[in-house]
Amino acid sequence: MVYPKSLQELIENLQVLPSVGQKTAERFALRIIDLDSDVVSELSNSIINAKNNTKYCQICGNLSETNFCSICEDEKRDSSLICVVESVSDVIAMEKTENYHGLYHVLNGLISPSKGILPDDLNIKDLEKRLADPKLAEIIIATNLTIEGDTTSLYLSKLINQVGEGKIAVSRIAHGLPVGGHLGYADDLTIIKAMEGRNKI
Amino acid sequence: MVYPKSLQELIENLQVLPSVGQKTAERFALRIIDLDSDVVSELSNSIINAKNNTKYCQICGNLSETNFCSICEDEKRDSSLICVVESVSDVIAMEKTENYHGLYHVLNGLISPSKGILPDDLNIKDLEKRLADPKLAEIIIATNLTIEGDTTSLYLSKLINQVGEGKIAVSRIAHGLPVGGHLGYADDLTIIKAMEGRNKI
Repeated sequence: MVYPKSLQELIENLQVLPSVGQKTAERFALRIIDLDSDVVSELSNSIINAKNNTKYCQICGNLSETNFCSICEDEKRDSSLICVVESVSDVIAMEKTENYHGLYHVLNGLISPSKGILPDDLNIKDLEKRLADPKLAEIIIATNLTIEGDTTSLYLSKLINQVGEGKIAVSRIAHGLPVGGHLGYADDLTIIKAMEGRNKI
Repeated sequence: MVYPKSLQELIENLQVLPSVGQKTAERFALRIIDLDSDVVSELSNSIINAKNNTKYCQICGNLSETNFCSICEDEKRDSSLICVVESVSDVIAMEKTENYHGLYHVLNGLISPSKGILPDDLNIKDLEKRLADPKLAEIIIATNLTIEGDTTSLYLSKLINQVGEGKIAVSRIAHGLPVGGHLGYADDLTIIKAMEGRNKI
């Protein structure tokens, strides 16, 4: 026996979600048909709505329902600072801290020659345009400590120095031991970075 | 910053799926808005279709798009045998073996006084009706080896013997070491069941 046709189709379609295979899709599908009709139609509608209504901000590449995102449009934010991140989820993580009040620039990926991702494939052209803003004083690069993150960071710092004629400061977020982390359990690279980035007290 | 409204709604709605929390829902939602529009509308439609078109078989409680499921309607199946299972996914697991050719009866749960699930809450009334079929020779109870599974098995065997006036054989699937399992790693209950259920060779 196979599942009834419409259920089988749902199980196949659910597998477009990240890390959802046959078994998980089956569990999801069986749950869906057990839910109340209005909950199911709400789920179904919200999928279409989210897809149709979510755009990328024309300035920073962050998600938005309008042409410009709520952060770019917020006049209270410090427009002298731009934090460059890999993806939208990095913006969310950063915003949850409620500690940073500057603007963002979302690259939507990292430079990775081995995967065929070159600077032109990323949202870098728009960043270049923003460098012309005379209010801009510093760009913080918040890419991860991976080969791709390092390559992207290096590429961007050269570009910013060149285009900004050295007037815009470029920095990178600190890498080291996480708060609550133990030296004895940390990996070598983290310890090396923590030593390199030591601060006078 | 929060997510754009429609995305936020999607993230909340996705959490009706089993073991999907905030983080997983965020990952799912971000993937959904990156998919092609036609893939998204197909996913959305298949959710509604599966919910609207999937019913429960009026005979056995299995899933079906019509009033009777494909197994109950299949005349080649051995109607002298009924295998009683807890849920639809047990039917799928059993059918994948292609080894069993009788019919099924899906209880949609197990008796569990501690959770307030009594025999009347399960699909047992319909099973009682099926006992009147003169062709029926054996009922195989395939509930799990848990307190609920044991309780349900005991309840059903008494019921079948009473209603069927002892003319219907009742059996329960064997519990013991799984194929490829090692005695040294098996839990106590599995070993005890394997010893109890030993066969002459």
